[in-house]
Amino acid sequence: MNQKEVTIALDAMGGDFAPYNNIKGASIASENPNVNVLLVGDPEIIKKEIENQKIDTRKIKIIPSKGVVEEGEPPGMAFKNKPEASVFVCAGLVKKGLADGFVSCGSSGGTFASATFAFGLFEGLSKPAGGGAVNGFAPKTLILDLALNVDCSSKQLFDFAALGVTQAKILYDIENPTVAILSNGGEKGKGNKSSKETSELLENSNINFIGNIEGDDISEGKANVVVCDGFTGNILLKSIEGLGKIITEFISKQSKSDQMKEISDEIFKLTHIMQEFGGGPIFGVNGIAIVGHGKSNPQAISNGISTATMLARKNYIQESKKQLSELRSSIKIN
Amino acid sequence: MNQKEVTIALDAMGGDFAPYNNIKGASIASENPNVNVLLVGDPEIIKKEIENQKIDTRKIKIIPSKGVVEEGEPPGMAFKNKPEASVFVCAGLVKKGLADGFVSCGSSGGTFASATFAFGLFEGLSKPAGGGAVNGFAPKTLILDLALNVDCSSKQLFDFAALGVTQAKILYDIENPTVAILSNGGEKGKGNKSSKETSELLENSNINFIGNIEGDDISEGKANVVVCDGFTGNILLKSIEGLGKIITEFISKQSKSDQMKEISDEIFKLTHIMQEFGGGPIFGVNGIAIVGHGKSNPQAISNGISTATMLARKNYIQESKKQLSELRSSIKIN
Repeated sequence: MNQKEVTIALDAMGGDFAPYNNIKGASIASENPNVNVLLVGDPEIIKKEIENQKIDTRKIKIIPSKGVVEEGEPPGMAFKNKPEASVFVCAGLVKKGLADGFVSCGSSGGTFASATFAFGLFEGLSKPAGGGAVNGFAPKTLILDLALNVDCSSKQLFDFAALGVTQAKILYDIENPTVAILSNGGEKGKGNKSSKETSELLENSNINFIGNIEGDDISEGKANVVVCDGFTGNILLKSIEGLGKIITEFISKQSKSDQMKEISDEIFKLTHIMQEFGGGPIFGVNGIAIVGHGKSNPQAISNGISTATMLARKNYIQESKKQLSELRSSIKIN
Repeated sequence: MNQKEVTIALDAMGGDFAPYNNIKGASIASENPNVNVLLVGDPEIIKKEIENQKIDTRKIKIIPSKGVVEEGEPPGMAFKNKPEASVFVCAGLVKKGLADGFVSCGSSGGTFASATFAFGLFEGLSKPAGGGAVNGFAPKTLILDLALNVDCSSKQLFDFAALGVTQAKILYDIENPTVAILSNGGEKGKGNKSSKETSELLENSNINFIGNIEGDDISEGKANVVVCDGFTGNILLKSIEGLGKIITEFISKQSKSDQMKEISDEIFKLTHIMQEFGGGPIFGVNGIAIVGHGKSNPQAISNGISTATMLARKNYIQESKKQLSELRSSIKIN
């Protein structure tokens, strides 16, 4: 079966190993049938790197941009001072219909902002959400929010559940994804104010809600979608990465055997799944944008492009809006 | 040097392996010079177990109680229905001056409630706090709250910082403990509403505040005291335990070698430090109470008794109240 041709813009300048890894990642991704990549960045630098790496450019095109949004740089300010920065140009290409989605491993603040400015938010959202799997031992458990939404109302948390459901359906082909709230206890009635209020909304909706789950349940993959605010989610994500890192260092100190090295590398990968996976899509914006991990390797960047491609082919945005509106209207109390 | 004689009450009936582990733990603890243990529980059961285990009872005394507060049982209700339950009798012994502190591995809700009812809270606190090390790779990093305080004001979070400082001074002999706020970003300005407000209070006080830290910084031991609400802290604690468990299971599946088994056991211990350590003291109540892990082994229970003993010898309660009041009054803004 011929798959629909898709064009993805890649921020060639964003990320800890840009442009080297980005260009290598674009090259890997462009080997897929009917996938074209637009490399957005400084043309001189990109051309040089393409030559160095001897990249096949038949399905890769260079789109010029000026400057990069730096890590920690306030995105609003960046947009004023360098509106032609790579990530803004990426989002612009999608907005103009010249690309079907974009991927950036640069400042995640910049990626969120460019997607929000260019595409606009779904109705009723005040900020975009970011989510994905955080634990490689449960690679199909989506956690959201992991990003900007630090103080969340129950209405926001309900929307994360609905957005997660669409995502789990599209990404993992799960028919009726289970949803749980991350809490400080498994029993009903445990939680903070907003998590308890969210429970009530979820219980009285069409969402397949299974109640509270605890921090250790995530490793067990007890739910397809786990809802929390971005403050908690981000702490969870980083603590898994940090523990994974220190455990692999501990193993390396104990033994230098090949088998041990293999096990330790695997544990590192499983605890740094975002890095491996190439990041996740931004939820709740009217366009496809993938927030990649700053430390992504070329394969991860190619994976990010594949995710964007798959979402474009599955009509992710329209599907997501439809589901959100249906699930919102299924709430039986107010 | 002769150390002050100390008597600690142990809830013999609380915990997943009670009374076996508890009585064995009491026996280990009573080998320490000048430490006496009061075993609180059903005298028939305890006597039988003491006989079975052939325990030396010269420094152990049995104090009768009736019933146990079960896991998940609302403590207020339990207090009404069985006021002579083991954990309530333990707290009563301390209140009457017959013991210098108590340890329970039973329902943590029951332990918190009995300490709160019997001892009362420090002025200005609305609930007791619970904290301790959660990550064995940073065994001297205290995290609090891990327990009941799920929605915290900045004033509460400030108090946790102050209580943690006292604790780090007494438990680890650190002269001027560093304090950090657990957040979704290391930079100033990152955080949710209450964490940002708490930053401001801490910056303008005598506390040795080093700013925000992230989830992965905990493994690195970047601060002596890490402040968060009990919702976040509990999720963090459980996620470390869960990840540790699944990683050790993963290692066991890959290899059955003795060395691998040793490494895997060590990783389990390091990620289940509360279980190893015998639990931590309740912060903010006018008496010494140790919340032990339900799965504590005998050595962990003995460690819990040693912690209670050490706190009693160091005048923990008076010291804690003094520090709290001094640090509170050092805030330069309001």
